[in-house]
Amino acid sequence: MIDVAILGATGYTALELMKLLLRHPEARITAVTSRQEGRPPVATVHPGLVGRLDLPLEDLTPAEVASRAACVFSCLPHCASAEIVPQLLAAGATVVDFSADYRLDDAASYLEWYGHEHPDGARLGRTVYGLPELFRSAIVGQSLVANPGCYSTSAILPLAPLLKSGLFETDDIIIDAKSGVSGAGRSPKLMTHFPECNESLSAYNVGRHRHTPEIEQVVARFAGVRPQVIFTPQLAPMDRGILSTIYIRPRKPVAEGDVLQLLRDAYAGEPFVRVVDHLPATKDSVHTNCCDITARVVRDRVLLISCLDNLVKGAAGAAVQNFNVLHGFPETTALT
Amino acid sequence: MIDVAILGATGYTALELMKLLLRHPEARITAVTSRQEGRPPVATVHPGLVGRLDLPLEDLTPAEVASRAACVFSCLPHCASAEIVPQLLAAGATVVDFSADYRLDDAASYLEWYGHEHPDGARLGRTVYGLPELFRSAIVGQSLVANPGCYSTSAILPLAPLLKSGLFETDDIIIDAKSGVSGAGRSPKLMTHFPECNESLSAYNVGRHRHTPEIEQVVARFAGVRPQVIFTPQLAPMDRGILSTIYIRPRKPVAEGDVLQLLRDAYAGEPFVRVVDHLPATKDSVHTNCCDITARVVRDRVLLISCLDNLVKGAAGAAVQNFNVLHGFPETTALT
Amino acid sequence: MIDVAILGATGYTALELMKLLLRHPEARITAVTSRQEGRPPVATVHPGLVGRLDLPLEDLTPAEVASRAACVFSCLPHCASAEIVPQLLAAGATVVDFSADYRLDDAASYLEWYGHEHPDGARLGRTVYGLPELFRSAIVGQSLVANPGCYSTSAILPLAPLLKSGLFETDDIIIDAKSGVSGAGRSPKLMTHFPECNESLSAYNVGRHRHTPEIEQVVARFAGVRPQVIFTPQLAPMDRGILSTIYIRPRKPVAEGDVLQLLRDAYAGEPFVRVVDHLPATKDSVHTNCCDITARVVRDRVLLISCLDNLVKGAAGAAVQNFNVLHGFPETTALT
Amino acid sequence: MIDVAILGATGYTALELMKLLLRHPEARITAVTSRQEGRPPVATVHPGLVGRLDLPLEDLTPAEVASRAACVFSCLPHCASAEIVPQLLAAGATVVDFSADYRLDDAASYLEWYGHEHPDGARLGRTVYGLPELFRSAIVGQSLVANPGCYSTSAILPLAPLLKSGLFETDDIIIDAKSGVSGAGRSPKLMTHFPECNESLSAYNVGRHRHTPEIEQVVARFAGVRPQVIFTPQLAPMDRGILSTIYIRPRKPVAEGDVLQLLRDAYAGEPFVRVVDHLPATKDSVHTNCCDITARVVRDRVLLISCLDNLVKGAAGAAVQNFNVLHGFPETTALT
Repeated sequence: MIDVAILGATGYTALELMKLLLRHPEARITAVTSRQEGRPPVATVHPGLVGRLDLPLEDLTPAEVASRAACVFSCLPHCASAEIVPQLLAAGATVVDFSADYRLDDAASYLEWYGHEHPDGARLGRTVYGLPELFRSAIVGQSLVANPGCYSTSAILPLAPLLKSGLFETDDIIIDAKSGVSGAGRSPKLMTHFPECNESLSAYNVGRHRHTPEIEQVVARFAGVRPQVIFTPQLAPMDRGILSTIYIRPRKPVAEGDVLQLLRDAYAGEPFVRVVDHLPATKDSVHTNCCDITARVVRDRVLLISCLDNLVKGAAGAAVQNFNVLHGFPETTALT
Repeated sequence: MIDVAILGATGYTALELMKLLLRHPEARITAVTSRQEGRPPVATVHPGLVGRLDLPLEDLTPAEVASRAACVFSCLPHCASAEIVPQLLAAGATVVDFSADYRLDDAASYLEWYGHEHPDGARLGRTVYGLPELFRSAIVGQSLVANPGCYSTSAILPLAPLLKSGLFETDDIIIDAKSGVSGAGRSPKLMTHFPECNESLSAYNVGRHRHTPEIEQVVARFAGVRPQVIFTPQLAPMDRGILSTIYIRPRKPVAEGDVLQLLRDAYAGEPFVRVVDHLPATKDSVHTNCCDITARVVRDRVLLISCLDNLVKGAAGAAVQNFNVLHGFPETTALT
Repeated sequence: MIDVAILGATGYTALELMKLLLRHPEARITAVTSRQEGRPPVATVHPGLVGRLDLPLEDLTPAEVASRAACVFSCLPHCASAEIVPQLLAAGATVVDFSADYRLDDAASYLEWYGHEHPDGARLGRTVYGLPELFRSAIVGQSLVANPGCYSTSAILPLAPLLKSGLFETDDIIIDAKSGVSGAGRSPKLMTHFPECNESLSAYNVGRHRHTPEIEQVVARFAGVRPQVIFTPQLAPMDRGILSTIYIRPRKPVAEGDVLQLLRDAYAGEPFVRVVDHLPATKDSVHTNCCDITARVVRDRVLLISCLDNLVKGAAGAAVQNFNVLHGFPETTALT
Repeated sequence: MIDVAILGATGYTALELMKLLLRHPEARITAVTSRQEGRPPVATVHPGLVGRLDLPLEDLTPAEVASRAACVFSCLPHCASAEIVPQLLAAGATVVDFSADYRLDDAASYLEWYGHEHPDGARLGRTVYGLPELFRSAIVGQSLVANPGCYSTSAILPLAPLLKSGLFETDDIIIDAKSGVSGAGRSPKLMTHFPECNESLSAYNVGRHRHTPEIEQVVARFAGVRPQVIFTPQLAPMDRGILSTIYIRPRKPVAEGDVLQLLRDAYAGEPFVRVVDHLPATKDSVHTNCCDITARVVRDRVLLISCLDNLVKGAAGAAVQNFNVLHGFPETTALT
């Protein structure tokens, strides 16, 4: 049994994480933090937890957190997370970081895309990217894991095997992604006010979404060179789910069946990647830790279509999967 | 041609009003106000108005407004409206007030339900309630009209003819109402944050919603006595539409057909009240100025079911209808 | 480990049931049936089950089913279920029946409300109603359980303790209920076609919904007399969730706190009934087996507000809960 | 005043058309047809028309239609439309055809994409494509207009000026389009059953949607050569609205401002094309006849983003616009 803490427990990814951990036979939640005053019960902020998790939201120091938990899930915003993680690690905790702070390989990129000096830059380039399907062996034995971005996972999982094959151009990749609104977090804003985004679709952060360098850097390891991807995030009127439609150009004509087989070979035995023949709907994978992928050949392109739940495989489920890998539990524990 | 101004033009009712007025052959929008600085074009706040209304949002004094417009629609919040209306009237403008400020008959009720001393209490009890179907002749010739609340209209229209008939108990009225989210306004709040209220239903302000005294006071004029209604507002995951299910007890058994006929007789010739045999859906009346009503007898009760668009018949459409009555235009102008 | 079969596995309640059973450590799904030809994999009908349940949909006789499974969940329509259940019981299986066939106490009511002679009328009045919170001890040891209707559970759970207390009138109960669309099943119809019911609310089957006699009969056991309830079902634009707003009249004035305490006392220790102080949203309980209940006093009435997931506590979750009671497993197994 | 008839009046595009025509001061609806028996009032099929259009649905011959109407809007399915149109034209009516029957230039393409021999092939290549912004002068004086497909308009309007400029590659065009569900018609199917498509996104007809050749053929007139586009239609959980994200490669680097200016120049003075600087949401243009367009430069591509209402600018609004052009009315009549 591992005692675990959740930092920044008032948001949606933290809520999803708590629900998953409550099902985990080897995890016990011992602390949930927030800067709110007065130690309110976590269930006053998340009414769905009434009767399920009886803990207060506490404003704890890193030392207090580490004294209560062997593993810490940080759901803090970027920058805030990297200010605390070093202290948690120094105190002996393992950390799964939901923020973007340890995903990029170098502090210069971090500065460019996040607009801040990295508070713990020395760990960049040395922290494992927590996609077990691609980096499982590197996760084992680590004390810190960078949990991937939701869009990033939806793009990297289908792209990695194709780029590794050498059969595809690396300089002509378009990722047209659509996400449910929970991906935008829990702070009320006009863009996510119900009457604004309900019954509506719109693009946002075109050409400057922060998952862009994360995708490029990770797929570069498979492509051999760093590609420049076009990544277009779009907001869809639903709670959860990401559908990424990816356009990539084969160097020579390929058969649809061969692309599907390439994907199936890459993910054989993986419980959370399902390569399917049909066109997947996000509804098939929401509330699960699965990423569904298919491929189509249209004219001179291959289309990769992937679906996942941004709060599960795109965040909390991936975190529990990493937790399982880190602590030697069967990887599907609490995730099926 | 009447020059009109809209005060508080950044919200949803104001947007709906501007769209309706743009279709009105006898209205010309000459001013739209907001306290935002810098005179931004109204279309930056309402992108749907790009190319349709080329006016800046201005922070104008009542005198400036009255110098530009013969008729003023106030979409200001309660209290704020009543602080300005007297000056507009003094300057010779006619006013249609969307706020609750002039709906109640007495300042004591206003204080009880709104928690403020009324800034213009002398006009209470002397201002006409702007439901043309019930008070048309009293609206003609007025300079100030209190535009009804959205829930109120959905309850009053079906109840008034029944209570007037004397066939129903006046002390046993339950109004179970459900509204789309635009009724909650345009200011982002957690309750109306998409991932909170999407795919969800909940009650709010049970027993203390401010439309309660408004409904009671208006139906009292038909019942002869002031009823105490139970009014339960509920939030439904949709942009617009109100469905009110009203339970009322006949003094003696009544036939469904007779209740429907009573409603039909009351609203014969009314273009915006449709008494229907089928069970109406809110979808049938959204984006129109219609209120659809039907009745059912179930055991010892009569059920009245009414549907309307909270932004049209429940707000901006009613305001245009009042504008038409005030200025002698055909009542359906801009509303069909 | 109990081998289980699901009859009529193509619908939404069956899908939810399969997902829950896949998490159950003591249940193994051995057969899933449908009348579709060609033994298609169940995952072709439910793409969410790809990689999770590798069984064909088979058209099996009751004897074949009973030879494969010790417990059978029947998701067949009413009438169809009662034609098969006797054979399953005769072959030694235990049965949890999702249909309405064994919920009513007498064949005359069944004929009146369902329009068919009951195929197995002798078991009416002798079959336990599967609400463990109210009838747990009677479920133990049975071979057949009538799984409750979704609306029924949302009404009975809050009403039973109040009616049992003797403090409330029994002849003045109004249940205004709103349900997500999955409650209408998986067969495409105009009423549930997306562009018809999305962004819309409507009442249906007013005064004649088949859960009416079920509610009356069960609450009669607590009230002492059979009440006549007014039950108004309404369709809301969301996948899942029921919000029931119930109006009941106390014989003498009651305090809100006392009503809440009465509910808390009744459900103390129940893991799946949460009596809460706040106004619950359906979102708090969807994807859980919980029913959330609160109470308010408004003028001369008590309002009971209950929320549950029609597919979980209203169907598949209740069935697994009954399965756990029948087979002696902890009642929360697979349900938390 | 022009007498008009609507053929196939039970669907969503016909409903939208009737609502628009009811506002048209120069159109009078004299016949609405369907193959339903018994001449039911059109309002029984479209309850939103109660009190607004008092006509029966009739099963009329082309001759009967032409005797009642000078202009006929055909909302019949493909093939069915082309079987009747010649008779209507012969009888002297003008026809606006919503189906795809007269959109393609040659019968071979029609056979390839629609799987039928064209019933009236001689008119292919000679019928005007009803996009007034691009082909206004060719529409004037015609008796038959092919009303464009909804996706097609959303792609052609932004692409045409760019391809005409000669500054862009013609063999590298990707159209990633997302549509609301009303685009799929009013016949209930599993794919559009609310609990299937609500809260979900999915691609469909990838690489084989029938709007593909229509787009290619029309943009070819501007590109000089026929491009092969990649067109990916996707279903979004909303009633109306299309968002098309289009990726096109400039021959040489271009500035974003220059692309926007190119679009502005092309559509200067057009009331229904709005070239905007911000990223448009579909909500800005639904329930209007506008198509909103913007452009972004991302790395080596230009992104064109367009939004429109599939039922208005994508169908009924375009038809009324064509009607206005054909009959010499101001083009915005009934459309603002």
